[in-house]
Amino acid sequence: MTQQRYRDLAEWPLMGTALVFLAAYAWQVIGRVDGSGAELLETVMWLTWGIFALDYAANLWLARERHRWFLWNLHELLIVALPFFRPLRLLRLVTLLSVLHRTIGETLRGRVVTYVAGSAALLVFVGALAVLDVEQSAPDAKILTFGDALWWAITTITTVGYGDMYPVTPIGRLVASALMMSGIAVLGVVTASIASWLVQRVEESTEAAAESVEEPLRAELAGLATEIAALRREVAELKDRPSL
Amino acid sequence: MTQQRYRDLAEWPLMGTALVFLAAYAWQVIGRVDGSGAELLETVMWLTWGIFALDYAANLWLARERHRWFLWNLHELLIVALPFFRPLRLLRLVTLLSVLHRTIGETLRGRVVTYVAGSAALLVFVGALAVLDVEQSAPDAKILTFGDALWWAITTITTVGYGDMYPVTPIGRLVASALMMSGIAVLGVVTASIASWLVQRVEESTEAAAESVEEPLRAELAGLATEIAALRREVAELKDRPSL
Amino acid sequence: MTQQRYRDLAEWPLMGTALVFLAAYAWQVIGRVDGSGAELLETVMWLTWGIFALDYAANLWLARERHRWFLWNLHELLIVALPFFRPLRLLRLVTLLSVLHRTIGETLRGRVVTYVAGSAALLVFVGALAVLDVEQSAPDAKILTFGDALWWAITTITTVGYGDMYPVTPIGRLVASALMMSGIAVLGVVTASIASWLVQRVEESTEAAAESVEEPLRAELAGLATEIAALRREVAELKDRPSL
Amino acid sequence: MTQQRYRDLAEWPLMGTALVFLAAYAWQVIGRVDGSGAELLETVMWLTWGIFALDYAANLWLARERHRWFLWNLHELLIVALPFFRPLRLLRLVTLLSVLHRTIGETLRGRVVTYVAGSAALLVFVGALAVLDVEQSAPDAKILTFGDALWWAITTITTVGYGDMYPVTPIGRLVASALMMSGIAVLGVVTASIASWLVQRVEESTEAAAESVEEPLRAELAGLATEIAALRREVAELKDRPSL
Repeated sequence: MTQQRYRDLAEWPLMGTALVFLAAYAWQVIGRVDGSGAELLETVMWLTWGIFALDYAANLWLARERHRWFLWNLHELLIVALPFFRPLRLLRLVTLLSVLHRTIGETLRGRVVTYVAGSAALLVFVGALAVLDVEQSAPDAKILTFGDALWWAITTITTVGYGDMYPVTPIGRLVASALMMSGIAVLGVVTASIASWLVQRVEESTEAAAESVEEPLRAELAGLATEIAALRREVAELKDRPSL
Repeated sequence: MTQQRYRDLAEWPLMGTALVFLAAYAWQVIGRVDGSGAELLETVMWLTWGIFALDYAANLWLARERHRWFLWNLHELLIVALPFFRPLRLLRLVTLLSVLHRTIGETLRGRVVTYVAGSAALLVFVGALAVLDVEQSAPDAKILTFGDALWWAITTITTVGYGDMYPVTPIGRLVASALMMSGIAVLGVVTASIASWLVQRVEESTEAAAESVEEPLRAELAGLATEIAALRREVAELKDRPSL
Repeated sequence: MTQQRYRDLAEWPLMGTALVFLAAYAWQVIGRVDGSGAELLETVMWLTWGIFALDYAANLWLARERHRWFLWNLHELLIVALPFFRPLRLLRLVTLLSVLHRTIGETLRGRVVTYVAGSAALLVFVGALAVLDVEQSAPDAKILTFGDALWWAITTITTVGYGDMYPVTPIGRLVASALMMSGIAVLGVVTASIASWLVQRVEESTEAAAESVEEPLRAELAGLATEIAALRREVAELKDRPSL
Repeated sequence: MTQQRYRDLAEWPLMGTALVFLAAYAWQVIGRVDGSGAELLETVMWLTWGIFALDYAANLWLARERHRWFLWNLHELLIVALPFFRPLRLLRLVTLLSVLHRTIGETLRGRVVTYVAGSAALLVFVGALAVLDVEQSAPDAKILTFGDALWWAITTITTVGYGDMYPVTPIGRLVASALMMSGIAVLGVVTASIASWLVQRVEESTEAAAESVEEPLRAELAGLATEIAALRREVAELKDRPSL
């Protein structure tokens, strides 16, 4: 079995796993579950981790150039090798985005916009979760409920940054930096889509003008063709004339 | 009567109703009216709500595919079904924007810019109103006067976000999120308009250059045409020669 | 004398006046001058105001369609009619920008960038002055020195908005709003210039490819021309042959 | 030796010197080194300064139009002439960027993006260092550790600006202003790259359509060519016919 074939087969189960992980993680972080519920959630999360570790091993095994694949996918190793470093594992959810990319939208611009809106929404949700996870137990933390975390994530990704809430732990700040950069990317895509639309609409009218410039060229060619046809007829007549 | 015809007829009265609602709402929120004045305003607002509810019913009744219209217009139902949730009702004012879209501006770019500037101004005003409405009675609120609310709305839509004022209630934060996203859209449209203008101006000079490239092609075609005409004349002479 | 001719003549003197006003205003605001110095500055500022008032009157007098000019230039009346509302008078400095527009830069993009950089610098300086003027005497004000005002103006025009400083008076907030909008415009122009440059560079390589597509067309035309020339020569020979 | 040749030769050694300076500076600022270690670092930094001063002198000596070079490179004099004004010396690291520009990336867009990402990362690092250097000894300073400085630099370059940290000294604010402007430039380049990519992709499909418009033109030309060839053959037959 080639690696490509394995990936095609594994895509949907992996996405399901990622969703289960997200749900369990969200529950644990927001619900602050205790007792047997906490244990169950912990088991589920370890299971999803196991599936991701297996997927990593399978990919490494099936890769055609194993050495190269290893070097190009160091970030995947990092996600698998640090099971306790949970916010980082959420990077796995990028899988979700690739599916979003595939299913919705028809025109190029439509697809780009859908993709970005989906990514932004997912990033806000995951970012809020991750920050809440690391911040809620920190001393002097400002972000203590999921509502606060969501509000903070939105003010951050839009680069508004009121400053009523901000992370104070190193990992929280790492997550925040990722959100800020996404914000810049989102802004960029929104602007670029509008610009591309405007440029195209303006160009269409210009194109119509260009068409009208090309028209006479074609008319001239058609004129030439009739002229030559007439010439040929005359030569044919000349040939058919009894030469005395 | 078809739905389209009904909408054409109802547009202006509905816009008037929206304006009356906005005025009554602004008065109530900013003026903190008491006594009989408050009762009058409340009556006016219930009346406008009634008109919107009737409009919703009429639309649903006249829709060709009633089921589909219902599903695609769930947000309208939400606005009508929650009469106490006033800030949301301000979404009705989108009607105003569609008129702005129709009346002003001639070139595509001019229309886009006018539309965005108008939308931004309306959003700032409506956003300030809505936030003031929900915040002014909240404990620990920062936004207490309409001046403060306007100032906050402007710092938010421009994504500056000083942080001297920010909403603290869930609905206030919802309104703020809408303003932030509008801010990104405004930024995008401003940038895109300038970019499209620059691209077009630069292209015009390139186009002129392309024209000069096309020129020789046409000259060559014209040369061919004269050549063939001459050829035809000669063949005609040949034909007319008494063949001895 | 036509209005256009008057404006051409008055441009440089008016700009000098605007500069003198800016200098006097800056001195008064930053230096907090007292005694006879303050009186002198006040006199200078009233003089510049007088010149601007005269200019307004002259323009109104010379305008071809006086009524229309009056309506389209209400903002100029506002600046002249409110001599005590000094920050607004700084709007007069827009004159400076129009000169900047004329003197520097050769290509379209170069001119746009120079213009925007100049405008941004002037806006930061003027905005800082205006805010300092209205804020420094307000209770609870945060902006108390010109250094603070400059720092605040820069954080505002770049839409960073830390929130360590912000205006608290209505006029200060009006000036701040103008700066924020300028910030969005600056951002838009910077982005648009880069985008236009990138689009053009990418297009140039595409254009080269288009050229190579057009090449065979021309070669084919040249081939036709030689073919027809040969044909003509043969027909000429035919004609010259002694028809026995 | 011409100036150009000298610059080619000196580039790599100068970059090495800049890196040594950056390392020593970072060590001194972050490590707050004392005793003999501090003296060693100080010596290293003076040495690198000496090399930069020599480079300035060599450039001035070899410049073809010495007077003009001097005027156009006043900023280099400023860097060399103020040895105690260390953050400014970090401007020398622009050298690093020019190398980044040369080594990575193949397509125009790829190169621009790589360049900007590299510049942004370097700017954040250098900006954090410079601000920490001037702020950590200031009273009322907010930025006291390198972690804080990095976090502050990221919130600044993305124009989020929470306001939990901000510089309070004039030089710190100067550095911050540079970071903010870089932030705007980064945003501009990101947006412009996406816009250019979108415009190109949309144009490619338009171009394909244009191709199909050009197709018939070529077909017509080919038809003309066959027609003329046939004509020539007939004339040749006419010529070869025994005339009588």
